[in-house]
Amino acid sequence: MKRFGFPVAARVLVFVASMLLVAQASSQTDPLPSWNDGAAKKAIVEFVQSTTTQGNPKFVPAEERVATFDQDGTLWVEHPIYTQIMYVLERVPALVKAKPELAKVAPYSTVLELLKGDRAAMEKLTEADLMKLLAVTSTGMPVDVFREEAKKWMAEAKHPRWKKPYTELTYLPMQEVLKYLRANGYKTYIVTGGGQDFVRAYAEATYGVPPEQVVGTAGGTTYGYTKDGKPFLTKDPKLLLNNNNAGKPEGIHLMIGRRPYLAVGNSTGDRQMLEYTKGGDGARLSMLVLHDDAKREYAYGPAKGLPASKVGTFTQALYDEATKNGWIVISMKDDWKKIFAFE
Amino acid sequence: MKRFGFPVAARVLVFVASMLLVAQASSQTDPLPSWNDGAAKKAIVEFVQSTTTQGNPKFVPAEERVATFDQDGTLWVEHPIYTQIMYVLERVPALVKAKPELAKVAPYSTVLELLKGDRAAMEKLTEADLMKLLAVTSTGMPVDVFREEAKKWMAEAKHPRWKKPYTELTYLPMQEVLKYLRANGYKTYIVTGGGQDFVRAYAEATYGVPPEQVVGTAGGTTYGYTKDGKPFLTKDPKLLLNNNNAGKPEGIHLMIGRRPYLAVGNSTGDRQMLEYTKGGDGARLSMLVLHDDAKREYAYGPAKGLPASKVGTFTQALYDEATKNGWIVISMKDDWKKIFAFE
Repeated sequence: MKRFGFPVAARVLVFVASMLLVAQASSQTDPLPSWNDGAAKKAIVEFVQSTTTQGNPKFVPAEERVATFDQDGTLWVEHPIYTQIMYVLERVPALVKAKPELAKVAPYSTVLELLKGDRAAMEKLTEADLMKLLAVTSTGMPVDVFREEAKKWMAEAKHPRWKKPYTELTYLPMQEVLKYLRANGYKTYIVTGGGQDFVRAYAEATYGVPPEQVVGTAGGTTYGYTKDGKPFLTKDPKLLLNNNNAGKPEGIHLMIGRRPYLAVGNSTGDRQMLEYTKGGDGARLSMLVLHDDAKREYAYGPAKGLPASKVGTFTQALYDEATKNGWIVISMKDDWKKIFAFE
Repeated sequence: MKRFGFPVAARVLVFVASMLLVAQASSQTDPLPSWNDGAAKKAIVEFVQSTTTQGNPKFVPAEERVATFDQDGTLWVEHPIYTQIMYVLERVPALVKAKPELAKVAPYSTVLELLKGDRAAMEKLTEADLMKLLAVTSTGMPVDVFREEAKKWMAEAKHPRWKKPYTELTYLPMQEVLKYLRANGYKTYIVTGGGQDFVRAYAEATYGVPPEQVVGTAGGTTYGYTKDGKPFLTKDPKLLLNNNNAGKPEGIHLMIGRRPYLAVGNSTGDRQMLEYTKGGDGARLSMLVLHDDAKREYAYGPAKGLPASKVGTFTQALYDEATKNGWIVISMKDDWKKIFAFE
């Protein structure tokens, strides 16, 4: 053994020991235990195995392994109302407290009725109202203040049906997919129509997705200084990126600069991202989450005979495109053994 | 030894062997061999050691380790003219070949004179001319086509002074800093006033910085389909992000969402990024590269008695701000033992 110096011996030991660990890991159990056996699970496992096995014709180099996930309705519950809309509405009482004259002015008055339990008031709020409320509650403050406010709300707010924090209403099977992909060298991104800064406030703790891997609808910021000369950024109402529909592939190019190999969505707002992903060369996997489990979650969308709801945007045309283009449709009812970790 | 199963034994072997490698690595030599001993080198090494040592009051958790670097003049040569401007100018003959009537029209005619060697023609080109040429040469095509054109040019073009590819004119001491930071868990970003797509075309091969870690001046894109239905993105002339001056911290927030712990620049266009970085809590290091080596590279900027040139934008005010705020000024002449790898 004298021929080999100490460092060489150490390297050999690392190599041999690593191989033992690899052998042990590969004999381990199912990376997707909350999934029932079926086409969806099979497609995910085959995708990961083929794109990460050296020598496989579908092999994807580590630096190109990008996977993008819509958030609302794909990673967590989006019914009866988007979480961020709830955030905006629940900021209104504090606004009215600061400026009591707003209490009698629409849309603030409408929101107050809604929060008192008058669900019909929701119908009165137009998209323009919501945009106005979004600007008033989510811009004009330093980015750090907005993040802390959003974090605080997220820690306290509860979903009306489950009476649990929204961050516990993530889909366990999708959390498993995120972890499985990361364990295989994929960078997992959230690509959401929701506000980028809002989602960043909780994505790292909730999904293990860091701020720099959240692509969302984004406004500008303005650089300035505090009175004592400290530089900071203020959130602007000016829209930079509407990260919905064609905005999703455009946002992906702006923020990532690579075409994803895997993408998951659940609505027409994800259509172009799923097309763009599937349209690349080599192995590409596009998937749609179908909400068809009225008992354990919600049922909306036209497939499998379910009526299209006003909120759901899983249209027949989207389902047809999925079938035609080889996207995988994930049935929450049939493919998911468990939906939430707390079940 | 029978008490320990195979996997446990393997883990012990990995641990012991890793410790041997660590011991070997820490006895290894200087991570910054192209730097002379001095305040700049000392500041970098102290920053890295203190922010990555558990228990040190300046410790920074791994996920927050973000370092941002300007490119032109900070990571590679920017004289006598920005590389991307050379790209734009050298695209003109092909444009004129496709549309011969342009040969007699300004600014195309001016560029043709310039490329024939009439350096005075450069003075005739206004910023509006350059913007027009940029739009004509760098938008209107699919993003993939632009990337391939930029890559091809970069492989063939040569710097007028050294007659070498631009990608060989990176500063070896800065390449060492990039590697040293990455080896210590920092994510290294390029934050450039140059075009994001242009810099992405070569940043991975040149600096080990992947596309998703290049933040630059960015235009929009438009989603569309080829005749046979393949989705793709076309580069738009519409400006989304002017990544200069205050645009740098704004771009950092948009694309990264974290305040950097270390930033390096070399001009007034980097001022706000350096302020924003240094203005954060805890250990923060802002640095300015001073071009004061006329012999080995170029001398421009007002410090150390050098005259401000028309191209250089290292002003006296910037130097004063550096001194006042505790930014480190890197003297190319004094701090860098070697400037280029080929020396």
